[in-house]
Amino acid sequence: MNLGDLGEFGVIDRIARAARRKGVPRHVVIGVGDDAAVLRPRRGEDLVTSTDAMVEGAHFRWSSMSPRTLGRRALVANLSDLAAMGARPLGFVCALAAPACTPLARIDGLVAGLLSEAERYSCPLVGGNLAAARETVVTITVLGAVEPGRALRRSGARPGDRLYVTGVLGAAALEVARAEGGGRVRRVAVPRLEAGRALARLPGIGGCIDVSDGLASDLSHLLEHAPLHAKIDVGALPRPGRFDAACRRAGLDPERLLLAGGEDYELLFTARPSLATGRIERALGVRVTSIGAIARGRGKGRLAAGGWRHF
Amino acid sequence: MNLGDLGEFGVIDRIARAARRKGVPRHVVIGVGDDAAVLRPRRGEDLVTSTDAMVEGAHFRWSSMSPRTLGRRALVANLSDLAAMGARPLGFVCALAAPACTPLARIDGLVAGLLSEAERYSCPLVGGNLAAARETVVTITVLGAVEPGRALRRSGARPGDRLYVTGVLGAAALEVARAEGGGRVRRVAVPRLEAGRALARLPGIGGCIDVSDGLASDLSHLLEHAPLHAKIDVGALPRPGRFDAACRRAGLDPERLLLAGGEDYELLFTARPSLATGRIERALGVRVTSIGAIARGRGKGRLAAGGWRHF
Repeated sequence: MNLGDLGEFGVIDRIARAARRKGVPRHVVIGVGDDAAVLRPRRGEDLVTSTDAMVEGAHFRWSSMSPRTLGRRALVANLSDLAAMGARPLGFVCALAAPACTPLARIDGLVAGLLSEAERYSCPLVGGNLAAARETVVTITVLGAVEPGRALRRSGARPGDRLYVTGVLGAAALEVARAEGGGRVRRVAVPRLEAGRALARLPGIGGCIDVSDGLASDLSHLLEHAPLHAKIDVGALPRPGRFDAACRRAGLDPERLLLAGGEDYELLFTARPSLATGRIERALGVRVTSIGAIARGRGKGRLAAGGWRHF
Repeated sequence: MNLGDLGEFGVIDRIARAARRKGVPRHVVIGVGDDAAVLRPRRGEDLVTSTDAMVEGAHFRWSSMSPRTLGRRALVANLSDLAAMGARPLGFVCALAAPACTPLARIDGLVAGLLSEAERYSCPLVGGNLAAARETVVTITVLGAVEPGRALRRSGARPGDRLYVTGVLGAAALEVARAEGGGRVRRVAVPRLEAGRALARLPGIGGCIDVSDGLASDLSHLLEHAPLHAKIDVGALPRPGRFDAACRRAGLDPERLLLAGGEDYELLFTARPSLATGRIERALGVRVTSIGAIARGRGKGRLAAGGWRHF
């Protein structure tokens, strides 16, 4: 049985039933099945939204990722954007474009993956779209809410700020690099939703972004609003246990993975120097590491070897 | 110059600048360029959202539609879903998947089309995503707001209700059918946003849906929540002037286009019989036509010839 056999409305009905089995939270006034979904934020909250697509061949391969893992990763990528704004999730919509010959089991797995993360983070599926296409594209738009005026911005960094990252970097990139040699991608990151909400309430936080494209790339977005650069202590970059040795065994450069590897979905943020690391860590409830500082002026290119790098 | 030459961030920057040139309404707290957009509805409003994709080959062909028309039609399809809920637009996000060889002029045209309708209906572009793909997929998610508890539902129809449609049907389907013989699709429907908001305030309205897939198909969605059927007076279906003659000249069956033709984006709704047609028309400010009635029990199939049809 494939997508084409069941037809558009048959598949939509199947997905809608799976979503309803997960239960409908009270703030969902109208969920799957109408012209649009209706959600009820708390009075006065700001509305937060972000969209992200996973394209077959570009972002995933069916040969190295199960449909369930794809679904989980697709939602987490979007939830991480809410985390980077300090928002709480309200729900998401999913537009799926896929060939008519797609096995129904693949759709079921994808939906099961989406719904499992949806349940975990209280972010129900409230609507979607299904279209025939030559390759699979999963486009998710997530909706969230934040206390008015409290959303974290990318553009808040100032000279003198310390630069921090939550958790550890590099694990996602190491797994993806290994999968290119024939392995499977199984890891699903944890979006830093609680930490993001705590950051949004903490006075003295500068800019914030999630590490989706890689530290170097995402750091550049954190600095592009003003003539700023960052000095990074590459040796201080937090990494999983035995990471450097595992990279070398796989013939990979640990520094390159730490700086350029994406999909860790940790939060990268700056804080005024008056805000102690211990206080941030207690407020966020996760490990945070000071990895450098923000300084005035545009960066002057990268240093060739390890140690401090300028961006 | 094509999409691949300018690169992901170059193209995003180009689109973001085009969006900012249109001005940023006050309710947009954070627009294009952060991890997510932040919008501020009025206090207590419910949030409305819908997503819809246009896939190359399935929903449009570059040979018969200009990029600008594609952009305009893509946003209108989504705005029409807000109209069917009685919601006002707040903004939209656009996920674009396209081949690297796509000419930049095509992207510019698409964006110009999106932004022209965005301006017309006060629905600014607030975010998006760009990905490389083998074929073009334009996925839009629109966000709107409605007074709490006032959203129009598909499921409100009751036995005895009169069935109404705004405007006229068939024009979009006639143009698309003609384009299959080598013509161009140029028509862009008007989403019934004002009419939808007026309907949401009017007491005695039953169910509401927009005519996107065609009258027969969308009517079936209006009736699926309960054992109901509709008696349609096919002769009463509102159509453009000289429509039947134009269909026959093109070798098309006018009844088929009126019943099965999609993309008119008129509102199809039911009202209690106590609500006079004149009162509805005055409240909505557009022509509305009573095209039939809702009755108890499942439909018994369609009549072969014209006249009344049961669904």
